[in-house]
Amino acid sequence: MNIEKVEKKLNTTKRMQIIDITTQADEVISSLEINSGIISLWVPHTTACVTINENDSSLWQDMLNRYKDLVPLENNYLHPKNAHAHILSSLIKPSLQIPVIEGKMTLGTWQRVLFIELDGPRQRKVVYTLMY
Amino acid sequence: MNIEKVEKKLNTTKRMQIIDITTQADEVISSLEINSGIISLWVPHTTACVTINENDSSLWQDMLNRYKDLVPLENNYLHPKNAHAHILSSLIKPSLQIPVIEGKMTLGTWQRVLFIELDGPRQRKVVYTLMY
Amino acid sequence: MNIEKVEKKLNTTKRMQIIDITTQADEVISSLEINSGIISLWVPHTTACVTINENDSSLWQDMLNRYKDLVPLENNYLHPKNAHAHILSSLIKPSLQIPVIEGKMTLGTWQRVLFIELDGPRQRKVVYTLMY
Repeated sequence: MNIEKVEKKLNTTKRMQIIDITTQADEVISSLEINSGIISLWVPHTTACVTINENDSSLWQDMLNRYKDLVPLENNYLHPKNAHAHILSSLIKPSLQIPVIEGKMTLGTWQRVLFIELDGPRQRKVVYTLMY
Repeated sequence: MNIEKVEKKLNTTKRMQIIDITTQADEVISSLEINSGIISLWVPHTTACVTINENDSSLWQDMLNRYKDLVPLENNYLHPKNAHAHILSSLIKPSLQIPVIEGKMTLGTWQRVLFIELDGPRQRKVVYTLMY
Repeated sequence: MNIEKVEKKLNTTKRMQIIDITTQADEVISSLEINSGIISLWVPHTTACVTINENDSSLWQDMLNRYKDLVPLENNYLHPKNAHAHILSSLIKPSLQIPVIEGKMTLGTWQRVLFIELDGPRQRKVVYTLMY
């Protein structure tokens, strides 16, 4: 198995925010000229995560609103300041693995790769590892 | 690394529904005659997802009931009609990777691969990618 | 692709409990002397799961408390005794895949691999599969 790792930076601008990183992932795949394999997206943080869904700003607002209903920002947590972000990250998780066939991720028509900031604004990283 | 991709169709019959697709995954593995590797299950949709749990219809009812309590069908969402399905899919995610050893997924005694329809009924796809 | 599978046992002591298994995963990688590849962690149970977050006992208490708020231990479930554990496991899921580069998992500074017991105490297993 061959492995290539590429690290990319990402600046978030809000406390909770969704950012479409599909183009960044596509660029990593095409820069490595890899035809088929699997791409791992790894967010090396404990207060951010990554998922798959549509690119739709109204939906993103619904998602963030519901996440806050499920895990409130303030809730007499023992861990100070940002427990909500840790808990949400533990539920949604900081990783995805996506097959790459003929140079493209096997995403459905509406699927986009979404980075979820849960405790920004911060400079974040995404670690892309391609196995082929 | 060798890669084989197989796409299978699935017809759901309810708005929210759990379907055991373990046998479908087993058939993909045995049809490709692959002994060891990793199988990726990818649901190319934004209102469905996949998880692991028991095959038990009472439990499935408990799961769907609780999912609806966590993310209600109607909640003044900005995204029309099926925001609940997108939000649940963003939490549970549309993918799984399962090691395959000696021709079998490394499932525990009670573990089954479960497709979760969140906005049916529809014709759905599951993309199985075997890397070996 | 080469594959090595190692199964480890784990004894939990509480009904719901978080255990840091990062060192166990590190030991599996170093015992196999594997430099780069991907490690799959698979919990072969339907009432336990695995995630990534900090090693912080206050935070762990916050996480477990919130999980119980989201999916109560008792809720007139149809499935007797431990439906809460099955439902939480279906949300958080029993697997993780982590790239291994130069003999180490690509974990961020604060990231640890956390086993989550949802219906203990029990003797549990974690199946580590290294693909390289």
